[in-house]
Amino acid sequence: MKKEDIIIRRAKIEDMAGVLELVKELARYENAEEQVLTTVEDYEKNFLSGLFDANIAVYQDEVVGMVLYFVCWSTWKGRMLYLDDFVVKEELRQLGIGQMLFDELLVEAKRRGCKLVKWQVLDWNEPALRFYKKNEALIEKEWWNGKKPIS
Amino acid sequence: MKKEDIIIRRAKIEDMAGVLELVKELARYENAEEQVLTTVEDYEKNFLSGLFDANIAVYQDEVVGMVLYFVCWSTWKGRMLYLDDFVVKEELRQLGIGQMLFDELLVEAKRRGCKLVKWQVLDWNEPALRFYKKNEALIEKEWWNGKKPIS
Repeated sequence: MKKEDIIIRRAKIEDMAGVLELVKELARYENAEEQVLTTVEDYEKNFLSGLFDANIAVYQDEVVGMVLYFVCWSTWKGRMLYLDDFVVKEELRQLGIGQMLFDELLVEAKRRGCKLVKWQVLDWNEPALRFYKKNEALIEKEWWNGKKPIS
Repeated sequence: MKKEDIIIRRAKIEDMAGVLELVKELARYENAEEQVLTTVEDYEKNFLSGLFDANIAVYQDEVVGMVLYFVCWSTWKGRMLYLDDFVVKEELRQLGIGQMLFDELLVEAKRRGCKLVKWQVLDWNEPALRFYKKNEALIEKEWWNGKKPIS
């Protein structure tokens, strides 16, 4: 595979199945696949309603990487782009696809008038932490997540 | 003050100055007031564009508490209500205003078809952690925040 064979483009509704496949691949890596309760139909419906966007990396007509994101509000910084998932297919890692996706994401954030890109990373995910360090990102360790399921 | 004197209602554009005051009060408590770069104008503009909502607690015509939130996407759970800030004025804490705001927030999340409410809390914020524990929230400690400012 050469970098020139990879196309980075905005996801369309017909890409949602491929996007969810990558979400599940990352969840498996995070030992949490059973926590993924969303379906392709959920993705299609809420993508159409504008709740999120995604950029994908396509290789030989297959979705092999993606960033999923939305614009939201940071009470301190203002408009913020939140990166909810960032995945490159395992067998195609270390080839620069992640960097292409991340670079384009920063351009997208600027285009949308965002002051900040924010995401989360598991404390044991060394390859991801190395990638973010290389990209001179700030890593904050003092915030915990609170969650309350709605039944 | 009696609970009956508190009104919980959806914030309007003219409440944004009071909302930002509370954001700054919480940031002072978190030793981070200088990190608040947003202005009342930013709040008004982005509130009008629908980027976020807030519910406020009003006592004697003053905004004394608030939750600021928006609906977004959880790749695992689907529609999610993200609680970005939750503040009660210091001199009016321990009176149940926070509980009134939190209860109403859970109702709002259900009304909007959300499967989950998510927020963040500083690891040393004992009163907040006690509150969330009392409310049987899940606290996750293994996720770090990544941030990249956009210039």
